[in-house]
Amino acid sequence: MIRREGRAADALREVKITRNYLKHAEGSVLVEFGDTKVICNATVEAKVPSFLKGKGSGWVTAEYCMLPRATHTRNQRESAKGKLSGRTHEIQRLIGRSLRAVVDLELLGERSIVIDCDVIQADGGTRTASITGSYVALADALQSLVDGGELPKNPLREAVAAVSVGIVDGVPFLDLDYPEDSSAEVDMNFVMTSSMRFVEVQGTAEAEPFTLDQMDAMRSHAMLGLSRLFEIQQEALQA
Amino acid sequence: MIRREGRAADALREVKITRNYLKHAEGSVLVEFGDTKVICNATVEAKVPSFLKGKGSGWVTAEYCMLPRATHTRNQRESAKGKLSGRTHEIQRLIGRSLRAVVDLELLGERSIVIDCDVIQADGGTRTASITGSYVALADALQSLVDGGELPKNPLREAVAAVSVGIVDGVPFLDLDYPEDSSAEVDMNFVMTSSMRFVEVQGTAEAEPFTLDQMDAMRSHAMLGLSRLFEIQQEALQA
Amino acid sequence: MIRREGRAADALREVKITRNYLKHAEGSVLVEFGDTKVICNATVEAKVPSFLKGKGSGWVTAEYCMLPRATHTRNQRESAKGKLSGRTHEIQRLIGRSLRAVVDLELLGERSIVIDCDVIQADGGTRTASITGSYVALADALQSLVDGGELPKNPLREAVAAVSVGIVDGVPFLDLDYPEDSSAEVDMNFVMTSSMRFVEVQGTAEAEPFTLDQMDAMRSHAMLGLSRLFEIQQEALQA
Amino acid sequence: MIRREGRAADALREVKITRNYLKHAEGSVLVEFGDTKVICNATVEAKVPSFLKGKGSGWVTAEYCMLPRATHTRNQRESAKGKLSGRTHEIQRLIGRSLRAVVDLELLGERSIVIDCDVIQADGGTRTASITGSYVALADALQSLVDGGELPKNPLREAVAAVSVGIVDGVPFLDLDYPEDSSAEVDMNFVMTSSMRFVEVQGTAEAEPFTLDQMDAMRSHAMLGLSRLFEIQQEALQA
Amino acid sequence: MIRREGRAADALREVKITRNYLKHAEGSVLVEFGDTKVICNATVEAKVPSFLKGKGSGWVTAEYCMLPRATHTRNQRESAKGKLSGRTHEIQRLIGRSLRAVVDLELLGERSIVIDCDVIQADGGTRTASITGSYVALADALQSLVDGGELPKNPLREAVAAVSVGIVDGVPFLDLDYPEDSSAEVDMNFVMTSSMRFVEVQGTAEAEPFTLDQMDAMRSHAMLGLSRLFEIQQEALQA
Amino acid sequence: MIRREGRAADALREVKITRNYLKHAEGSVLVEFGDTKVICNATVEAKVPSFLKGKGSGWVTAEYCMLPRATHTRNQRESAKGKLSGRTHEIQRLIGRSLRAVVDLELLGERSIVIDCDVIQADGGTRTASITGSYVALADALQSLVDGGELPKNPLREAVAAVSVGIVDGVPFLDLDYPEDSSAEVDMNFVMTSSMRFVEVQGTAEAEPFTLDQMDAMRSHAMLGLSRLFEIQQEALQA
Repeated sequence: MIRREGRAADALREVKITRNYLKHAEGSVLVEFGDTKVICNATVEAKVPSFLKGKGSGWVTAEYCMLPRATHTRNQRESAKGKLSGRTHEIQRLIGRSLRAVVDLELLGERSIVIDCDVIQADGGTRTASITGSYVALADALQSLVDGGELPKNPLREAVAAVSVGIVDGVPFLDLDYPEDSSAEVDMNFVMTSSMRFVEVQGTAEAEPFTLDQMDAMRSHAMLGLSRLFEIQQEALQA
Repeated sequence: MIRREGRAADALREVKITRNYLKHAEGSVLVEFGDTKVICNATVEAKVPSFLKGKGSGWVTAEYCMLPRATHTRNQRESAKGKLSGRTHEIQRLIGRSLRAVVDLELLGERSIVIDCDVIQADGGTRTASITGSYVALADALQSLVDGGELPKNPLREAVAAVSVGIVDGVPFLDLDYPEDSSAEVDMNFVMTSSMRFVEVQGTAEAEPFTLDQMDAMRSHAMLGLSRLFEIQQEALQA
Repeated sequence: MIRREGRAADALREVKITRNYLKHAEGSVLVEFGDTKVICNATVEAKVPSFLKGKGSGWVTAEYCMLPRATHTRNQRESAKGKLSGRTHEIQRLIGRSLRAVVDLELLGERSIVIDCDVIQADGGTRTASITGSYVALADALQSLVDGGELPKNPLREAVAAVSVGIVDGVPFLDLDYPEDSSAEVDMNFVMTSSMRFVEVQGTAEAEPFTLDQMDAMRSHAMLGLSRLFEIQQEALQA
Repeated sequence: MIRREGRAADALREVKITRNYLKHAEGSVLVEFGDTKVICNATVEAKVPSFLKGKGSGWVTAEYCMLPRATHTRNQRESAKGKLSGRTHEIQRLIGRSLRAVVDLELLGERSIVIDCDVIQADGGTRTASITGSYVALADALQSLVDGGELPKNPLREAVAAVSVGIVDGVPFLDLDYPEDSSAEVDMNFVMTSSMRFVEVQGTAEAEPFTLDQMDAMRSHAMLGLSRLFEIQQEALQA
Repeated sequence: MIRREGRAADALREVKITRNYLKHAEGSVLVEFGDTKVICNATVEAKVPSFLKGKGSGWVTAEYCMLPRATHTRNQRESAKGKLSGRTHEIQRLIGRSLRAVVDLELLGERSIVIDCDVIQADGGTRTASITGSYVALADALQSLVDGGELPKNPLREAVAAVSVGIVDGVPFLDLDYPEDSSAEVDMNFVMTSSMRFVEVQGTAEAEPFTLDQMDAMRSHAMLGLSRLFEIQQEALQA
Repeated sequence: MIRREGRAADALREVKITRNYLKHAEGSVLVEFGDTKVICNATVEAKVPSFLKGKGSGWVTAEYCMLPRATHTRNQRESAKGKLSGRTHEIQRLIGRSLRAVVDLELLGERSIVIDCDVIQADGGTRTASITGSYVALADALQSLVDGGELPKNPLREAVAAVSVGIVDGVPFLDLDYPEDSSAEVDMNFVMTSSMRFVEVQGTAEAEPFTLDQMDAMRSHAMLGLSRLFEIQQEALQA
């Protein structure tokens, strides 16, 4: 399989991060991984979930949704079905855990940051784009608390980003688009911090179990791609 | 009350219609009424609701949703709550009825057009912007059926658009933004076709019942605004 | 189309209002518009919705339901379906807004009046009958608070009533029964106060958009019918 | 405890059965046991539940609901709560089983009779009144099938009725009203056919377990009351 | 019909009660009525339902569930369906009422005991086995409160147990297994206390109404079986 | 941290697999990883999900549930809450994918195998125990199809099992029990086939991101444990 636009096996698609995308949220980002486009809005709320009340710690959580026509054919809305799918549950829990890994929740105090990831166009990698973009929205929301005098210092410890890797026709490919993802034998998602440590690793053999060597090859590709994503996040935040 | 940016009482906000906004839907429009931004996607489906099966008639329906942070403070997702609010039900039924009024459903044949209106940023008038933008997405989707040889001619009879009018401090204002809407004594929405006939009229006294003269004044403003909206739709479709 | 029982185009059906219909509610009315029969019960509750707590203001809200066999064919119960239809949401929101328009909510104090409209037999105009009958049940419930020494004076400002008008075969008809409603090209509902001001106006072109002249003809019919309904309400309350 | 209106321990309240109460249902009855008032509507449907499809047998089922203000204080609607209570489930299953016991379901053929019991006013004994009244509505609906030539003969085998008995201050009382029911130590419901055989027996010790002698005393009272109810049903059907 | 393993008409199946079956609950029992196996776990909670708050009284409640493959063919999980069936509601309300009948709720104080009955294998009589086994789990949970010094004395007044009886081919059978239950004309469940008083009596004519003599015969069988069950409970508690 | 019962860092808990545990299911296993006990029932159904109809392929899916008191404190039932948690969705999707990885679905034909994993006692590792035990239940259910002449040969390709690994106080531990899991900095689950290839890899940094070296150490432990689990499965199947 030859990749679209002649992309190399270990190359990311074009990644764009647009800050201040919408006007109401404390942090608002449009993140694009090629044709995958996700709006990431970060909201500051002056309350924590009940299991944290009175404990002096804050919380970061995420919700994830796709527009019905983000995809080739229309999907029924989960609001119309009256419940979230298992896939949505999985993804939003993953995003939440990933972001919490880089925030000092005690420093945040009894506040919540709610991240809304709404996929307006999907072409593979919506969860990794969501994590990568949400980090920037989160950074803006936390900075607004510092700027407003509500926090003495920013509770972010380091950056976090995510990327997918897969094996297509036996070859490890970085950052799969939708056609690649559909024909991949194995699909792995890596979430790492900017100190190059792992937060989440999720690999699934879609068609055929994979070997230790294949896992290591995918991991190398992912670490390469993540290094580049940390640079792009940094550039966006300094713009 | 003086309107933002010195807008005249009978003036629309700046209205923009961007076609082909997203890549998957048969018709995809971003409509903006000032800071109100709605993505309107039109999907063609080769089936009709069960009450129409075998009757040789098509159907047009709509769904409406707001991103949680389209508004000043975050709203809980209806998918998380597990049910649609009464407000959402009202609005999506209104959009559907408005669009069906200008489509020859028999000519459409046993097909459905599903319109998804997703408000990404709200500043008043989301339902009227949705109707106005959806007409353009609908026109594109129907034209794609004609272009693809699936329909002999376009089943659109004429254009449809909508606008709000309200009475603020005793003065009739056209196309209310959010601060105006919040302080309006009366709020009316008019949906008309390009032959200047009425499809829907909905007026609500928020604070104080209104007189016959006030209703007539609002109606005049609305008709003026709608004439302008039909021009803007036409320009977008000819671009 | 000739109307049943030779009714004139601008005539109401026979309207009956029976007070003290059931024994438990603070206000209990059976309202009949011809064969449409609705039980309207008003309940006084010593609490307000959370958004009003501590604000010194009361609330009036309504719920609407049809018996499954109020209609020609049986409808599934909304309790069995586990959710309210969009139509029910629309109607009960309309009834609530209409009644609030004539109540001084601050004078009511931190109390709620909940109006339950249960349609036991339907023959067109269930929402307008509900509003018209609910006003009387509300008046009785509020008077019971005055009589019981809980309120210094009755917080009702004036009366409110509602009527439908439609265009059938090109002719404007007042107070449509079910067969007329089913064949109407246009259907409008007017809610007015006894000072002949408008609270709600809702018009829908079921089949064909309507002209400005048609809207004005319907409005005249409605105002005539509403004058008569205010007399009937007054007679019932003085009986 | 002295009973209201000097009623004897083994006397029923005044029981009234009004046929043809509402106009749309195939059988429509208002049944009154003293101040308890239930509308029982019987609907004929030309289908059976899926577990009976193609088996040549019919079905009889029931649904039960209370108006929110049938009771002293207002109850939340089950449609608003989004689910039926355990009590509602229990009662509607009891009504359905009781009626099926007297219908020859094979003779009925592949049809369903749906009985809707809507309590408009409650004063104890709503489930027994529902069964007693529903029998009459069912008889009318089945007779309409015979009269319309759809069934060669009426599939009713005999009559069915129900009554409550309880022990109040150690004394067995027939047909408890609400204040008696609230202070009863034991509450039993008997459903019998007109051949004086049992269809359902349900006894519950609300406060104190009961003895064999007490059970027998209650059973005697119930059989006396049911004999009288079969006469009242018969009179209603012959009126 | 000859009973499996040559069981006499008035004989119980082999009944086994295993205490301390699982390690976390305050009382944990595996009860077996022949091939019917139910895990009964009793949990002590330091709170009461809202209707009891501040009244100085405790509460005992029960939940009932079957593993999907407790039965011959697989049943869909109620958690997947999103709601409890009417049958489940009925059974868990019955278990709760039965247990409350033998507990001095005031002596229990403001605590709840929640009994979970999970049927892992079903062969008839799951509700009667649940009640019989739950009594033992309840006794253990209450004793743990006494032993821990939280209660001055055990609030149990006496024992409670339950058994089914049915009429199969005209013959009254005690403690029906599944094949018997499926072919029974009548099915009764008796819940009694160890002082041989009745807590619940529920009889249903599945196919044919039953006579007074039949009811008395079933009652005799039940009382015999219950005497034996009280012995078995006692033996288990003394082991 | 010293492990309970002096367990080595790379040692499994005692693992027991009991086949034919319950009598109705086609495959029924009780699997124990120390105090974690899960009933795994495999049901053969003669149908496939709608997306597979007519495609000649079978399906394997799983559902997962915990008894409310499987844990130290009682959890509310998901059937009572009316929806599955995100955690349950995640786990049952994982089990289903893991099992499908070793089944030749085309050879299975248009049949489904539904695996029910019901945790009756939890002490860490419920998902890995579920996968390991379900494989045995699946093998028995598939063999019953071969034995019954419904399948020419067993569609199992190889065995599948799962184990957890974590880092506790900086040390990699195999097969965490609940107290270890609660204090682990990192938690990884490995699902492998008996050819020692990977099906699923899921790692989560609960407290602190982990390094590449730590990931490799955990992976080694997991592979060791899985080799032993494949032997235990094999022994159980040959018993």
